Amino acid sequence: MTSAPRRSECPIAFALDLFGDRWSLLIVRDIALKGKRYFHELENAGEGIATNILSDRLKMLVDNGVLEKARDPEKGSRRIYRLTDKGLDLLPVLLEMIIWSGKHDPQTVVTSNYMERATKRRQTMLKALRASALA
Amino acid sequence: MTSAPRRSECPIAFALDLFGDRWSLLIVRDIALKGKRYFHELENAGEGIATNILSDRLKMLVDNGVLEKARDPEKGSRRIYRLTDKGLDLLPVLLEMIIWSGKHDPQTVVTSNYMERATKRRQTMLKALRASALA
Repeated sequence: MTSAPRRSECPIAFALDLFGDRWSLLIVRDIALKGKRYFHELENAGEGIATNILSDRLKMLVDNGVLEKARDPEKGSRRIYRLTDKGLDLLPVLLEMIIWSGKHDPQTVVTSNYMERATKRRQTMLKALRASALA
Repeated sequence: MTSAPRRSECPIAFALDLFGDRWSLLIVRDIALKGKRYFHELENAGEGIATNILSDRLKMLVDNGVLEKARDPEKGSRRIYRLTDKGLDLLPVLLEMIIWSGKHDPQTVVTSNYMERATKRRQTMLKALRASALA
């Protein structure tokens, strides 16, 4: 994580220093693609993340400007997590992972229709994902 | 890693179950983008990976079909690592990480010329990267 000094000036290492772990991009996924906003929603999002790991990753993503913690517009005493522009810019990374798994996971749930849109109408799809993440 | 059961049917989780760590994609980078082929080249590739971690990740990437270990065509007693098709298909993931860091790392070494080619002539660039990785 970013508590360690950066390993090199390589841009791929920069990215992995921040989200090169099993969980960070799943949290970004839950917020960007599944509309999760609250801690308890993220905690119950499916893969069984431990509470302390979720807390740690959320703090790290906020500290690094990928997420921001904001007052819940519906109930001001609660806090929500949402993506910053820096976080929204991770959508293309997520999309390429989906395409890769759609092609190489023999048990994939990614449909051929999704694969076609993701590869042939990539920009349109990214725009739609971004709009959906901001909704 | 893949010794654990998969966490969910999510394609992003599938990808992270395999390469969701600080090192695996750097090894793919070294082979795909830097022309490294030998264990000792990968060991000295810049970020100071520990020998045991490199061994472990290489075995995992071979076991999962991302890399293959082959006889060195120049010296048959040596072994080289090279990308499979499944490994080459990670190039778009790497490219998106480069673009993301190029945009969001204030100290980035990614040039504006590279950023322009990567975003505006993405398919051409991916083809060139793939050709270079296969050379």
